[in-house]
Amino acid sequence: MKKLINSPETVLAESLDGFAAAHADIVILGEERKFVRRKVLTQGKAAIVSGGGSGHEPLHAGFVGFGMLDAACPGQVFTSPTPDQMLAAIEAVDTGGGALFIVKNYEGDRMNFEMAAEMAGSEVLTVITDDDVAVETSTYSIGRRGVAGTMIVEKIVGAAAEAGMPLAGLKALGDRVNARTRSMGVALTSCTVPAAGTPTFTLSENEMEMGVGIHGEPGRRRVPLEPAGQITEEMIAAIAGDLEGRGDAILLVNGFGGTPQMELYLMFHAAKAQMEKHGFRLARSLVGNYVTSLEMAGCSITLSLLDDEIARHWDAPVHTAGLRWGM
Amino acid sequence: MKKLINSPETVLAESLDGFAAAHADIVILGEERKFVRRKVLTQGKAAIVSGGGSGHEPLHAGFVGFGMLDAACPGQVFTSPTPDQMLAAIEAVDTGGGALFIVKNYEGDRMNFEMAAEMAGSEVLTVITDDDVAVETSTYSIGRRGVAGTMIVEKIVGAAAEAGMPLAGLKALGDRVNARTRSMGVALTSCTVPAAGTPTFTLSENEMEMGVGIHGEPGRRRVPLEPAGQITEEMIAAIAGDLEGRGDAILLVNGFGGTPQMELYLMFHAAKAQMEKHGFRLARSLVGNYVTSLEMAGCSITLSLLDDEIARHWDAPVHTAGLRWGM
Repeated sequence: MKKLINSPETVLAESLDGFAAAHADIVILGEERKFVRRKVLTQGKAAIVSGGGSGHEPLHAGFVGFGMLDAACPGQVFTSPTPDQMLAAIEAVDTGGGALFIVKNYEGDRMNFEMAAEMAGSEVLTVITDDDVAVETSTYSIGRRGVAGTMIVEKIVGAAAEAGMPLAGLKALGDRVNARTRSMGVALTSCTVPAAGTPTFTLSENEMEMGVGIHGEPGRRRVPLEPAGQITEEMIAAIAGDLEGRGDAILLVNGFGGTPQMELYLMFHAAKAQMEKHGFRLARSLVGNYVTSLEMAGCSITLSLLDDEIARHWDAPVHTAGLRWGM
Repeated sequence: MKKLINSPETVLAESLDGFAAAHADIVILGEERKFVRRKVLTQGKAAIVSGGGSGHEPLHAGFVGFGMLDAACPGQVFTSPTPDQMLAAIEAVDTGGGALFIVKNYEGDRMNFEMAAEMAGSEVLTVITDDDVAVETSTYSIGRRGVAGTMIVEKIVGAAAEAGMPLAGLKALGDRVNARTRSMGVALTSCTVPAAGTPTFTLSENEMEMGVGIHGEPGRRRVPLEPAGQITEEMIAAIAGDLEGRGDAILLVNGFGGTPQMELYLMFHAAKAQMEKHGFRLARSLVGNYVTSLEMAGCSITLSLLDDEIARHWDAPVHTAGLRWGM
């Protein structure tokens, strides 16, 4: 295992300490590193809280800050955080408006966030994201997996909360954005979880995993590597076939961690042509590593349908480590 | 070769088309893709122009925009752009204030930018960056290589130009920032240039290249993989030993393209402790993929000494694809 670490046991702790030090103007690391919270809270605002296994950075801690999340609970790599982490986070960031959980659809995450919601003294509502069209059930999920579209839900809901929308409205908005958002991924290589020490799966020199999950879970099929144009055609067709409505959309080309920007922009170029064939119009663009799988090579494509309200929240100022504009 | 591409010959063109489409609010792609320029120019401002081989994205095209570069000339992967590219760029963006070239210290880049400066109708001055302390001469350079510190020079000089500083002042400021900036890198894996199809170099399962260049050029020595703390200790000692003065500094931990954010933040954590031992104070932080080597695993560490003027320009608003704050 070739990694820039000291020991597999301390990766998360040292990484979180580095993150908190690098972004001390935005975040505070909670006691016992149970959560990362926003430095400045707004009294009475509904708190947006997310979290999940680590290894997907900048998701979620990288999206804590003005206009997005109030807190994120990091589990060990690809491992759900525990209910006491969410409880500590809520206690730290609920200033009277209650809390909205944004949870990717994996069994462990759902169970632990649900437990925390039941135990919390605050009012808590939950949005489950399940934007991955690749497979109907998977290694860690019943129903579709929540993947890169999650960061779009976090951005939109975070902006709406900032604008003063109360908890029930945020829940409805989050569900609505999730329903208008679809993703699919492809992997060229595996990643290696530090605690495991060996690659999660293996692909031969000429193979790719079409429809891969963000933990390296199997997708639709393992096939010989195809040109970017063909890969994109299949991915956009799967997304479009599953998405009701056409029109203005966000196109997110999300790197999994080991793919150069040159390739991501090349994929963006191909995806734009394909989405237009299916009747979508490129209204907003995002290209980069946002929801990763450690050093996995590959990327996902996400389309998210806009309307005036959603576009306004997408464009609203955001100030986090991983996403920043307008301030 | 596992890459998300259509063919090695069209990687750069398709990638640039994707980049221009994704960031159409900021940039315009020049004719024949000779350069990427800023969409909105300021009359009379000195133009900041950079460029170099592709494969280091977001450097340089990703730094075109308000507060940073006016134009960037992309060569083929790890290949210098040609003088006619710089001439076309100058013609497009010089609005009367002349042009400052920011050039990484590689023979090919220097020769071609120098030729362009001689042929240009505009007044042109040049800042050469050579921040890499690893080796005194290398595969493509006589004297030290220009690496990640280049983006710090581009940010500071770009902000000063935006504030109205004339050409001669910008040249002096750029030289001064370069002289206060030192970097060193480490690679865990090689990258593969699309046109070559095979890895640039090979490292065994337990080896790393200490002092690697951003094209995979050899560094100081090839040694067994060490813990992050030890690697950082050696890198910061080399940087500190070469840097006159102590005090407030920018700490940039720059991923080479294939290293997860978790590891970069872990390296940041270790580097911060080491820099403080050497008498530097963490005043500004930057962690991410800024000056990459395609999908190479590894990172570089850069320290750049601040003073009031430099800090003010660092903090000034910037709006590019790769770096954005304050707007």
